Amino acid sequence: MTQDFYAKHRETLDKAMEATRTREFWSPYPEAPSGKIYGENAAAEGEAAFKARLHQPFKLEMPGIEGEVGEERSPYGFDLGIRYPKVNVNQLVPAMKHSLAAWRDAGPEVRAGVCAEILERLNKRSFEVAHAVMHTTGQAFVMAFQAGGTHAQDRGLEAVAYGLEAQTRTVSETRWVKPQGKRDPLEMDKRFRVIPRGLALMVGVSTFPTWNGYPGLFASLVTGNPVIVKPHPHTVLPLAITVEVAQEVLKEAGFDPWIVSLVTDTREAPVTKELAQREEVGVIDFTGSTEFGEWLERNCHQAQVYTEKAGVNSIVIDSTDNLKGMVQNLAFSLSLYSGQMCTTPQDIFVPRDGIETDQGHLSFDEVADAIAEGVRKFLSDNDRATAVIGAIQAEVTAERIGEAAKLGEVVLESETREHPQFEGARVRTPLILKVDAADEQAYSRELFGPISMIIATDSTEDSIARATRLAKEKGAITWGVYATDEGVLARMGEAALEAGVSVSENLTGGVYVNQTAAFSDYHATGANPAANASLCDSAFVANRFRVVETRRHAA
Amino acid sequence: MTQDFYAKHRETLDKAMEATRTREFWSPYPEAPSGKIYGENAAAEGEAAFKARLHQPFKLEMPGIEGEVGEERSPYGFDLGIRYPKVNVNQLVPAMKHSLAAWRDAGPEVRAGVCAEILERLNKRSFEVAHAVMHTTGQAFVMAFQAGGTHAQDRGLEAVAYGLEAQTRTVSETRWVKPQGKRDPLEMDKRFRVIPRGLALMVGVSTFPTWNGYPGLFASLVTGNPVIVKPHPHTVLPLAITVEVAQEVLKEAGFDPWIVSLVTDTREAPVTKELAQREEVGVIDFTGSTEFGEWLERNCHQAQVYTEKAGVNSIVIDSTDNLKGMVQNLAFSLSLYSGQMCTTPQDIFVPRDGIETDQGHLSFDEVADAIAEGVRKFLSDNDRATAVIGAIQAEVTAERIGEAAKLGEVVLESETREHPQFEGARVRTPLILKVDAADEQAYSRELFGPISMIIATDSTEDSIARATRLAKEKGAITWGVYATDEGVLARMGEAALEAGVSVSENLTGGVYVNQTAAFSDYHATGANPAANASLCDSAFVANRFRVVETRRHAA
Repeated sequence: MTQDFYAKHRETLDKAMEATRTREFWSPYPEAPSGKIYGENAAAEGEAAFKARLHQPFKLEMPGIEGEVGEERSPYGFDLGIRYPKVNVNQLVPAMKHSLAAWRDAGPEVRAGVCAEILERLNKRSFEVAHAVMHTTGQAFVMAFQAGGTHAQDRGLEAVAYGLEAQTRTVSETRWVKPQGKRDPLEMDKRFRVIPRGLALMVGVSTFPTWNGYPGLFASLVTGNPVIVKPHPHTVLPLAITVEVAQEVLKEAGFDPWIVSLVTDTREAPVTKELAQREEVGVIDFTGSTEFGEWLERNCHQAQVYTEKAGVNSIVIDSTDNLKGMVQNLAFSLSLYSGQMCTTPQDIFVPRDGIETDQGHLSFDEVADAIAEGVRKFLSDNDRATAVIGAIQAEVTAERIGEAAKLGEVVLESETREHPQFEGARVRTPLILKVDAADEQAYSRELFGPISMIIATDSTEDSIARATRLAKEKGAITWGVYATDEGVLARMGEAALEAGVSVSENLTGGVYVNQTAAFSDYHATGANPAANASLCDSAFVANRFRVVETRRHAA
Repeated sequence: MTQDFYAKHRETLDKAMEATRTREFWSPYPEAPSGKIYGENAAAEGEAAFKARLHQPFKLEMPGIEGEVGEERSPYGFDLGIRYPKVNVNQLVPAMKHSLAAWRDAGPEVRAGVCAEILERLNKRSFEVAHAVMHTTGQAFVMAFQAGGTHAQDRGLEAVAYGLEAQTRTVSETRWVKPQGKRDPLEMDKRFRVIPRGLALMVGVSTFPTWNGYPGLFASLVTGNPVIVKPHPHTVLPLAITVEVAQEVLKEAGFDPWIVSLVTDTREAPVTKELAQREEVGVIDFTGSTEFGEWLERNCHQAQVYTEKAGVNSIVIDSTDNLKGMVQNLAFSLSLYSGQMCTTPQDIFVPRDGIETDQGHLSFDEVADAIAEGVRKFLSDNDRATAVIGAIQAEVTAERIGEAAKLGEVVLESETREHPQFEGARVRTPLILKVDAADEQAYSRELFGPISMIIATDSTEDSIARATRLAKEKGAITWGVYATDEGVLARMGEAALEAGVSVSENLTGGVYVNQTAAFSDYHATGANPAANASLCDSAFVANRFRVVETRRHAA
């Protein structure tokens, strides 16, 4: 009676596994929020579905529900009023542990089929998810549709593909025949079964709940670990919808729906630490602060812990043969989602003697002014601006802008803007400062939000050395470099190997340093303090399961 | 000028990768210590080479050598007197770090070729290595040749194969072309480079320096991490020879020989903790005590730590249709290397009401007596006995036998034997006790050495439940079960999935519960407290390296 989701999605899964090998462009989930692709009514229906959630209880199937909890407010200025189930984890966790065996014994293919079906259904609900992401994270709508919807789905499927391949690259049964000279060979029948590490805990982040959450969620699920989704208390809805869809598919496939469960808490009564140290929890995925990430790494010895934490991303500008393209590209990167991406450049290193460009030599101040002017121009049309910068997710981020302005000479002031649709939206444009490289205090820590520094260095060598040291000490997820000389690019590449950071070279077109494409680009390397894992590679899945062997003499 | 070792070994490496997938029998290193295979003079030359080492300095190429160190004594009763280089790690570590870039930039194939060449040369020196293993660990000669020589080489090549595959399953360069509707596609050229985590530290164990050491050593080396080999101070020589061979091959291949280095310490002045916490160390492999393994896991946050620790291995006897075969098989397993294997069964659970066999019903006492008598008979010929049990590696193990005898009713006393060749060899036969299942204190911790317990339980269900609890709490590397009923085997199999232990069913022939074959059997699962890793799987290699990407617009 249960659906064969593996058969249904096998071709997609095979293509996904192949894409992770070739790393060519591939995506099964179209990123355009277009009626031609998703249906003429999809946009309206998605918005209506989102609105119908507001001020209602959100129903999920989980043992141990005891009341309601919810405190979300849209960065665009209104309360969501959604009430999520409050769960007694002392009832939920044993129930999930009890449901583990059936999920484990289903095997990798069945699990991969269920995961692919969940992702396909999420894809069909991308408009609804986009509104949910927009009104919890503050992302603008198109970005919420892409980064929160289709690109997150890509990253989820990528994790499923890695997990399926890791579990199936070796046989599940074999006949082992060892020659014994003139005597009969030794013959053994062996069976190899995948077991999960236990329950998985996915701790969601407030800004990218799905994009940063799906890799861990689906990597754990496909490898047999039932998953507790613990969203940020201010960004619950996108993950609640995800859990709802997962439960629907699990049930149809004949499994207990609470194999994917949602535990919602509040800022006042957080439950993550308690959950993370439970002996049943064998895998933890976390995106968020360095402080809490390190706490998890150092205190949850029973679990495999994957973290993405803070970092300081650098751009090294040595020279360019396309000043306009460079400025436009950087202006977009600094503006996108008001710098609230873990991939937004913060520190832009420029030699104090200036740089060579296709428009002649530019002094350091001229470079700084060109970038500031690029951002000002890009954001001059308020409708276009707000469709890119979105809103500030947390009040603390907005407050940080004012404090940061004291750290250097302001070359572009942060403005508070009105949003054309949402009165009371928390909209801020980027702040750009000039500082001297000697003023390390100013630029050597993450200043999360729309805050960037243009830093005067002794030379490009000095710029590279400072970026390298920062990445090794504070972490970095992205680097960019602008140089017309292959020798400079090579030296930046060498530094990247040392610092363990990926580099985008001379971006002047429609690819941005803060964006990575699933199946092709790795997000973070796991080789510097910004993250201990990469999205997605074999290391991200291989430790989520184990193999148990039984062997006997062949009959 | 440098040799193309990858081309030379490519076929072997391809076969090795294939074997890890099919898990059929395969080995490139013949296990028979035979003149027909290794050359008529190999045995004599190997012994002579070993003897020529005694009471001499052992030369290796490493920066920072400051004097000599060495305190090895053969368990067969004589001092080795070998003096190893004493190294100043504050000079060695920076030098190894400096040599890292060339090894990293050589790429996976070159590194795999070098590793395969090292293993081939070690294979040719298997007789010499066998004597070195014998006279440090106490293993009998044939076992030292196999477990210390050829089987260790198998495990090393297995790790190389996993590492090579993990690094090369994805492309190193790609052209990424993203369609943009009617506009030109976005085109990027991307390059992906493997970087190591840093330096690797392999901490050797006194009993299986090569078998337990090669997987970590070669997994780290093939993934680009220069390796510091830190042997147990009483078991240095087998790893010193390994480092010598590695340095010879590295040099021929054009690399700094100290990319594999040996740091020898003493019991009085151990250096492992200091080394393990150095920031340059990114990977640690350890086999040994639970206490020290947990210390490494909890205190070396900068490194990926792989540990194999203590455990309590169980056999569950429910019934058998081949009593003689069962007894002979168990007698060998309990005797081999005097129970000094991490895979030796310690706890044998038998229902107190006895079992059904092909020779009728046997009471609990009759089962215990049959096993004791099997061991007694197997060891009745002293020459045959000493060729299996070897010598006791450490005095503390010999002392433990006497203390353990007080824990239950002795059914087989441990004897002190004379060795036919070596006066003063520390030879002990197995001690077997009877205890009641209620006496958990007696059998619920690892009693390393030739000590086993036959435990009276309420039923086979009780036996399985106790073995399961023990494995989950104290760890286990091996389980065996004897049952004529598939239902019982299935229940043991279910328990194995829960406890995370591999099971051998009804072993009555020439395969033993304490032996695993590389490329087919996994050694440990990593799913219970006995080990956090398995030899060898993808998880064992995937976290030893990272990928750094560079991307630029396609020209």
